Amino acid sequence: MNKPRTADRRSRLKPVNPLKDVSPARWKTALTCIEPNKILMRGYPLDEIMGRLTFGESIYLLLMGEVPSPGIGSLMEAILVSCIDHGATPPSTLAARNTATTGAPLRACVAAGVLGFGRYHGGDIESCAQFLDTGLELVRKGASYRDAAEVIVLRCHELGEPIPGFGHRFHTRDPRAARLFQMALELEVEGGHIQMIRAVELVAAALPEGQALPVNIDGAIAAVCGDIGIPAEIANALFIISRVPGIAAQAQEERQREHPMRQIDPKDHIYDGAAQRRLPDKRR
Amino acid sequence: MNKPRTADRRSRLKPVNPLKDVSPARWKTALTCIEPNKILMRGYPLDEIMGRLTFGESIYLLLMGEVPSPGIGSLMEAILVSCIDHGATPPSTLAARNTATTGAPLRACVAAGVLGFGRYHGGDIESCAQFLDTGLELVRKGASYRDAAEVIVLRCHELGEPIPGFGHRFHTRDPRAARLFQMALELEVEGGHIQMIRAVELVAAALPEGQALPVNIDGAIAAVCGDIGIPAEIANALFIISRVPGIAAQAQEERQREHPMRQIDPKDHIYDGAAQRRLPDKRR
Amino acid sequence: MNKPRTADRRSRLKPVNPLKDVSPARWKTALTCIEPNKILMRGYPLDEIMGRLTFGESIYLLLMGEVPSPGIGSLMEAILVSCIDHGATPPSTLAARNTATTGAPLRACVAAGVLGFGRYHGGDIESCAQFLDTGLELVRKGASYRDAAEVIVLRCHELGEPIPGFGHRFHTRDPRAARLFQMALELEVEGGHIQMIRAVELVAAALPEGQALPVNIDGAIAAVCGDIGIPAEIANALFIISRVPGIAAQAQEERQREHPMRQIDPKDHIYDGAAQRRLPDKRR
Amino acid sequence: MNKPRTADRRSRLKPVNPLKDVSPARWKTALTCIEPNKILMRGYPLDEIMGRLTFGESIYLLLMGEVPSPGIGSLMEAILVSCIDHGATPPSTLAARNTATTGAPLRACVAAGVLGFGRYHGGDIESCAQFLDTGLELVRKGASYRDAAEVIVLRCHELGEPIPGFGHRFHTRDPRAARLFQMALELEVEGGHIQMIRAVELVAAALPEGQALPVNIDGAIAAVCGDIGIPAEIANALFIISRVPGIAAQAQEERQREHPMRQIDPKDHIYDGAAQRRLPDKRR
Repeated sequence: MNKPRTADRRSRLKPVNPLKDVSPARWKTALTCIEPNKILMRGYPLDEIMGRLTFGESIYLLLMGEVPSPGIGSLMEAILVSCIDHGATPPSTLAARNTATTGAPLRACVAAGVLGFGRYHGGDIESCAQFLDTGLELVRKGASYRDAAEVIVLRCHELGEPIPGFGHRFHTRDPRAARLFQMALELEVEGGHIQMIRAVELVAAALPEGQALPVNIDGAIAAVCGDIGIPAEIANALFIISRVPGIAAQAQEERQREHPMRQIDPKDHIYDGAAQRRLPDKRR
Repeated sequence: MNKPRTADRRSRLKPVNPLKDVSPARWKTALTCIEPNKILMRGYPLDEIMGRLTFGESIYLLLMGEVPSPGIGSLMEAILVSCIDHGATPPSTLAARNTATTGAPLRACVAAGVLGFGRYHGGDIESCAQFLDTGLELVRKGASYRDAAEVIVLRCHELGEPIPGFGHRFHTRDPRAARLFQMALELEVEGGHIQMIRAVELVAAALPEGQALPVNIDGAIAAVCGDIGIPAEIANALFIISRVPGIAAQAQEERQREHPMRQIDPKDHIYDGAAQRRLPDKRR
Repeated sequence: MNKPRTADRRSRLKPVNPLKDVSPARWKTALTCIEPNKILMRGYPLDEIMGRLTFGESIYLLLMGEVPSPGIGSLMEAILVSCIDHGATPPSTLAARNTATTGAPLRACVAAGVLGFGRYHGGDIESCAQFLDTGLELVRKGASYRDAAEVIVLRCHELGEPIPGFGHRFHTRDPRAARLFQMALELEVEGGHIQMIRAVELVAAALPEGQALPVNIDGAIAAVCGDIGIPAEIANALFIISRVPGIAAQAQEERQREHPMRQIDPKDHIYDGAAQRRLPDKRR
Repeated sequence: MNKPRTADRRSRLKPVNPLKDVSPARWKTALTCIEPNKILMRGYPLDEIMGRLTFGESIYLLLMGEVPSPGIGSLMEAILVSCIDHGATPPSTLAARNTATTGAPLRACVAAGVLGFGRYHGGDIESCAQFLDTGLELVRKGASYRDAAEVIVLRCHELGEPIPGFGHRFHTRDPRAARLFQMALELEVEGGHIQMIRAVELVAAALPEGQALPVNIDGAIAAVCGDIGIPAEIANALFIISRVPGIAAQAQEERQREHPMRQIDPKDHIYDGAAQRRLPDKRR
């Protein structure tokens, strides 16, 4: 326990008294500089950013270090909006609602929800990014996109694993993925990652049982982030950030509309909110 | 344990077998409707929102039920940006960094950070909202803003409690609060809550030791949210949402730049990021 | 934000640079002293404690500072055992199971479960301790236990609040509470708190609708802890500690027996474990 | 997202309406059966267990399904005691203390602490169990313990990874590990896992820089659990359970002794608790 696994072995040979260990080197942060009456995020005064960059653009600035171009800014907003909520039944949302019904404060509900963004839920963005990178490595070595796609799909098939970024519990065609690809096309940021996922989609559709296995929003985010230079780890952070409003809204609704300590059956609910409607003309 | 404290007492008299208890009434949600290949958030197709509303506007839509007006949308973005990060030393950030140094995944670090948004940290928005409401109640009964402010400030003074929404560990003048009030003025949404907090500021400045006790960002958010109709609980949710990117970025930086299992002294760090700079002209 | 609410106001007037703030006074801990090759918990070498004190006794030592007497040690074990698990339906357990179904690691499931030990769940120990103390204050001023009980029960009744430590979702007679009181009687540690809760029980039973509202395990723990000198805050910590094995076991079972990303309906399960049995003779 | 990665692919082709999906099969639990006024843990009435099994024995019963023999019960207690606390400086403890200083409730501090039981901290039990199993596989195929140990140590060496279960930040000889091995010897439960870790210790000591790299408590728990039939996953759960009292005690001390919103420097503290002492004679 307490053992730095990647640390130099020699350093572990010299036990240190924690009360006497004085590290001369200061640790460093490049994110936000705090001085009296001044807050600089990535060099920009936070009060100058307020009203000039949106929250989505500021998230990009904080994570990536620079103000996004208008096109990349639009994609950031779209990515963050795409995962904002997915109804009452994702397990992370149910963890948050079960915590809310105990009378816990909102932050505890949000924390419980965030802990459920695991391997099967949100984590697919990172797996799909690695999957696409494996294909692009083959392309770089001379393979066509189609051939590379066949290799990496076959590999999943042989391992009995689903294709990362494909398929969905409820949707046979993920409307969020389609919209994100359309925006990437219009904003002219399409690159190798989107080309690769398109090739995988064709290969998957040709599989005997693959016809209804579409790209999901995780796959779309992985491909678009790849093409605009966002590393897989940051794409993963974007998913966490994007779903927190949904977790908070669901926990808040649980607190307001339901009685405490209830037994929450995820299948036993109905939607009683606004009927389907369209954005006002000026927003379209 | 397990006892619904606010539930009807009679219901507790009849013990139920959990395996047989079948609730006929379905529970309800008004947030997001999920159907195959369709996701409606507050009635709007999520793929239609993508690219048309920003993340900040979508957060407002999800929490409040309607698309914000342009002015309120701008304030939403500014509020969310104002708390996005405050450097490496807030205890919630240090909880996240200490979790990161154990090799925990990003979502665990974010959860640990969110749990520190407590009474002294973020929670001041809700306290300040209640504080201002107490003053506005007096105004509604005929008091002037000045007199009402004196009454509620004196009450804090007598209880030995600080004025909610005032004072800061590092800043004698909180640049984020000043900017938010300026935006509220320009966007013409100033109302009773801002008037009340201004009156409290004057009263506080007249106290013998109060001259350097300015409105902080919690106070500014409480007042502005009050004037644009956002309830205190939702304002509290906004703080959680706004700081998650900062927690994620700090945890990510810890994972990337520092060695695992280190001892994190919050005072022992330096900033080595971008020098102070200004937004490009077109963003001003 | 970041503002020490209870701190001296004057200290907040002097903004400090966090990078320069050097606190001369060291902070202190009285729990465990770590030196190279030596771990002293409350003064005792941990390796000497191993095999000589049980885990329950060691928990008492850590929290209270001294090795418990045999009688108090037995009560500690019984208190910790009493809350170890309560089946699959408490919301905290469901939060942990919903987190487990996402593929999250065990520690994340445990954290999500612990967050649900809220006002309605576990938190009743602390409320009941305060409730009994209010009654004992009246006794100290000359009231009889019966009269004091009537006053504090009536107060709950008027506020429309249930009596803390009484009533249960499933049980009309909590077998754990009965056993704990029996042990306190046999070990001769009964004092004012148990007398007070007995008086409250009589008063509650005389209420028109109170006949089936028995002391629950929270109430029993609050009373017994009161009589053996464990403060309410520590009693609350004991509940958290006691239930963690149950949360861990339930999350572990979810991971092993169920498929990932399932929809967990708490009412839809059956018990398929060991049939009712008795401890071997030598353990009775 | 939301996609069961290991589920049958065909099932993902048929989208289901969550509101109509009715699973006919009930899910199952074998841990605790709840009926009105009756709680059976692994078949035993919980009120019968209270006062007859210790908390440590009950944890074994809950996780493993049977009452432990006296010898295994003693080892369980010793394992649980061995990790109960390790002072104020482990990152998980610091995450809990940083959460406590924000004014968060105890359960939030415990959750934040538990989240730090990661790869480098506690997680080594599971890695070491797998490491020893690899060696024992070689023994089963005919290798001597010594040869098997050389193979698996060399493999770590080549990968540049430390030997799981060996080395410690502070201790050159972990007193807890020595005591646990001594108890296993006295209780006559030593088997292949302990033999294997002993062989690894000899091989490690013969490495040029390995002389001060002793078995740590994680290694000892992994080996002893292996020999008494506790799977690696359960051994991991034992670590979480064992450290929760320490996390709770440290967070509680932070709340009681320190002022809120302080900056916690882990190196800047002193121990001011009880001086070294010995257990009373009757406990030795």
